[in-house]
Amino acid sequence: MGELILTTFDWVPEMPRGYVRDLRVRWALEEAGLPYRVESTPFEDRNPEHFASQPFGQAPWLTDGDLSIFESGAILLHLGERSEALLPADPRHRSDTKEWLFAALNSVEMAVLPWSLLMFSGEAEDTSASKLFDGFLKVHRLQHLEPILAGREWLAGPFSIADILMADVLRLVDRFDGLADYPASKAYVVRATARAAFVKAHADQMAHFEAADAARG
Amino acid sequence: MGELILTTFDWVPEMPRGYVRDLRVRWALEEAGLPYRVESTPFEDRNPEHFASQPFGQAPWLTDGDLSIFESGAILLHLGERSEALLPADPRHRSDTKEWLFAALNSVEMAVLPWSLLMFSGEAEDTSASKLFDGFLKVHRLQHLEPILAGREWLAGPFSIADILMADVLRLVDRFDGLADYPASKAYVVRATARAAFVKAHADQMAHFEAADAARG
Repeated sequence: MGELILTTFDWVPEMPRGYVRDLRVRWALEEAGLPYRVESTPFEDRNPEHFASQPFGQAPWLTDGDLSIFESGAILLHLGERSEALLPADPRHRSDTKEWLFAALNSVEMAVLPWSLLMFSGEAEDTSASKLFDGFLKVHRLQHLEPILAGREWLAGPFSIADILMADVLRLVDRFDGLADYPASKAYVVRATARAAFVKAHADQMAHFEAADAARG
Repeated sequence: MGELILTTFDWVPEMPRGYVRDLRVRWALEEAGLPYRVESTPFEDRNPEHFASQPFGQAPWLTDGDLSIFESGAILLHLGERSEALLPADPRHRSDTKEWLFAALNSVEMAVLPWSLLMFSGEAEDTSASKLFDGFLKVHRLQHLEPILAGREWLAGPFSIADILMADVLRLVDRFDGLADYPASKAYVVRATARAAFVKAHADQMAHFEAADAARG
């Protein structure tokens, strides 16, 4: 257990602000009340040190003493092992939290990402590809998730890292109004993002990038 | 720790055979030498018991005594906690294995899935969507992964669950000849799938679905 240092981009364009994945880590750290420091790496001209810490040139990564960890899922699982506020101790809820953490990333985000990339790129017209990915997200994912979220407050017992990931993944769908037909999913996002830890994490990310604008003059 | 029961579909069409995700679990169980039993759930007419065990109606899931776990990533992490042949004990390799496990699922498979869906659906023509997802996979993922796989035998020290997932994800790219320009990635897939545990797991999955053909007459 060492000092926790979260590294994210020094600056990003307007579009991704509020959605850069360091938000997930900030949110978890705030929920757990773990002290941490934020450092920056250049968004433009990504350097070799960056690729040594994050092989795909993305952000964030976390250092904890001698360990350096990339991938938001791996970072949250690591923090979960440091705080029961993030990952419950009893075996059943602990196991359920981990499966829902993977479900958020590998079943739901897997369907959200292509859908949102087409939205971002303005390709969301009635092409066969846009229909394919719209159906993948809505018919194969949101339709099954909706009754689950209608029947419970959080995914796996108490609020956990699974909820941080699922809510953050669903926020991106909501941004493009994709939750209009899924009221329980929408209510879940509202419930999760009303938490003080999310509000602070989000404000901190926005302030971090706004400070960079100011520094650029 | 209870009896391990892996549940997969009773039958699938020819196309996905050899690629159904129970393969990942079979492979891990064979690597670890853990005894297990395979059960089947209907592929057509998926029943409420299925959705209770796997909320998206997919396969596989694993039961271990009182625990029922879905998501191949969560299952492999669970098995890793039962066997050092899957997840090394020393803290550095253990942490690296987990981050690469998430990288396989949430960075690489996230890019492979839309690319392969377009391939499967015959949409891989020169549309703007196909160019978008081809670039996402190759420029943003494979190009960065290639020098890493050129420089090491396995992702995180000894062979681990991270390699099972990454190799299985890359196999799907290779199936559509997407690794032609990435020789180290291709060699990694060949190396991983030459392991006795993969060969047995793959043969067992093929035999499972062939037996279903026979039963259907």
